[in-house]
Amino acid sequence: MSEFEIIDKYFAPLTMGHKSAYDLKDDAAVLKIPDKHELVVTSDTLNESVHFLKDETPENIARKALRVNLSDLAAMAATPLCYQLNIAFPKKPLNKWLEGFSNTLYKDNKEYNIFCSGGDTTSTHEGGLSISITAMGIVPKGQAVRRAGAKNGDYIVITGCVGGAALGLKLLQKGLCKEWCKESVERYFAPVPRVNCKKIIRKYANAAMDISDGLIADYSHMAKASRLGAEIDIAKIKFSQEVNRAIDDGIFSIEEAITGGDDYELILAVSKGNIKPLLDELNKINLNPMVIGCFLDSDLGLKFVNTKGINISEKGWEHF
Amino acid sequence: MSEFEIIDKYFAPLTMGHKSAYDLKDDAAVLKIPDKHELVVTSDTLNESVHFLKDETPENIARKALRVNLSDLAAMAATPLCYQLNIAFPKKPLNKWLEGFSNTLYKDNKEYNIFCSGGDTTSTHEGGLSISITAMGIVPKGQAVRRAGAKNGDYIVITGCVGGAALGLKLLQKGLCKEWCKESVERYFAPVPRVNCKKIIRKYANAAMDISDGLIADYSHMAKASRLGAEIDIAKIKFSQEVNRAIDDGIFSIEEAITGGDDYELILAVSKGNIKPLLDELNKINLNPMVIGCFLDSDLGLKFVNTKGINISEKGWEHF
Repeated sequence: MSEFEIIDKYFAPLTMGHKSAYDLKDDAAVLKIPDKHELVVTSDTLNESVHFLKDETPENIARKALRVNLSDLAAMAATPLCYQLNIAFPKKPLNKWLEGFSNTLYKDNKEYNIFCSGGDTTSTHEGGLSISITAMGIVPKGQAVRRAGAKNGDYIVITGCVGGAALGLKLLQKGLCKEWCKESVERYFAPVPRVNCKKIIRKYANAAMDISDGLIADYSHMAKASRLGAEIDIAKIKFSQEVNRAIDDGIFSIEEAITGGDDYELILAVSKGNIKPLLDELNKINLNPMVIGCFLDSDLGLKFVNTKGINISEKGWEHF
Repeated sequence: MSEFEIIDKYFAPLTMGHKSAYDLKDDAAVLKIPDKHELVVTSDTLNESVHFLKDETPENIARKALRVNLSDLAAMAATPLCYQLNIAFPKKPLNKWLEGFSNTLYKDNKEYNIFCSGGDTTSTHEGGLSISITAMGIVPKGQAVRRAGAKNGDYIVITGCVGGAALGLKLLQKGLCKEWCKESVERYFAPVPRVNCKKIIRKYANAAMDISDGLIADYSHMAKASRLGAEIDIAKIKFSQEVNRAIDDGIFSIEEAITGGDDYELILAVSKGNIKPLLDELNKINLNPMVIGCFLDSDLGLKFVNTKGINISEKGWEHF
């Protein structure tokens, strides 16, 4: 199968019939942006042996590659529109691989109402598989929610439990995967981008970002971007049953749970007046939000209470 | 230098002060698309040892990575807006490399009136450098020019000489670079995207695409996309002085010139009534357009006249 045949057979169906992508056969896609909206654009690259394990399935790679981008759109309170799929293969991919990869993207396209608008399929001389997705979304003019908008006194809210993905990864790496930790492993492989709370965030949040580098690193990013200090009460962070069990069993720690990445819940900054309706509405769509602290004057820095001797580093994942 | 410091120091200035990119510090960029315009989106990935030589300078890599994308925007008759820069490093890059790379992009940003809206900076476990750019442009509603729009009887026009880049690459690979072939080598390293003829194309062309895979492969792509046959008169294809000299010297051939890629001139389909004003206006902006054939009924297939025994393959560069 040639490059063009691969695109035609496996990637063109990912346009989901949107004519603006010209069946991936033109130099570019031409997209209509609805009036009174802005375009939200984000990119995430996933490299073999860095962002995913060497023997990971095409289904898991596909899910993660698209969903981490959807999570960034969710963090801006944007509605997903389309994405560019750039994929570099170190050797000619097997049809079975391409099938698993494209079928999974197809399912996620439907699930998240997004389509592939174009991209580039290339070969690399050596090295591993690399997938770079640029996702686009739309948001009513002026309603994108930034990470820099937190205000002194705002509550810090997270949209669900953290630590599951880091536990899943640890167990995978140690070959300790068991039935009881299925949810955490799934969480690592297939994060759930919080695109369904975009309207709630636009309405009630002063700032938002997604947790990709770990709760502690990312909340400190938000505080710095907003030029604020912040205080987190460790006791208020609830973990999933699986994470609690792993902590009880001594194979995982609270430090790992709050510094580990890949959860893709959102951190929100919410004023006192908005906190009740926000929590109510997030609960209504079956999220599990929790208030874990608040933003403070910048002079107060970043503080943690109820640490019970936990050694917290603010440093999240960095490439270099 | 950490990942964040690299982004801050070398890539954030590439936003050229556009606030919509939030200094590359947020989850996504938020872009205003002017009313009555559509968004044109394209991606191109460049991998070490495939799209550029292993020891190529950061300046040349930067130029090529951005300009091949600008060429796709030019082919749709779009005005450049911004781009996402996704760069995967096999090892921590040197400051000197980052400086050369980002300074060159900065210059090209100015030259082509475009800015960096975001991206992702990652490490790879092994392999070579990989750069994936997704470029965005805008075009007045309904005025994007596709490759599928050629009509039976339209002239085939190219916006300038082809073969120079292929000659440059050949001489580089054989270590035969000399003073007399400087322009061709420059052409290979730093293609000139034809963004300045967007208005002329919108006004006069029925179809357009850029020549990246080679004239013969790409004109056949255009014919197929438009469901037409076509005839090219080889004698009407004029080459640069350097290409002519290389052909005369026996180190390059007409076949290589018309099948070699990377020239990034545009192929246009232009009706008989529009041909004169189109050529006049392209000449006025110092391009060197030539009419090299015409589109025909699909039953007639792809024909070449004046071939003088040249053996022409329609197959351009493919990755697999």
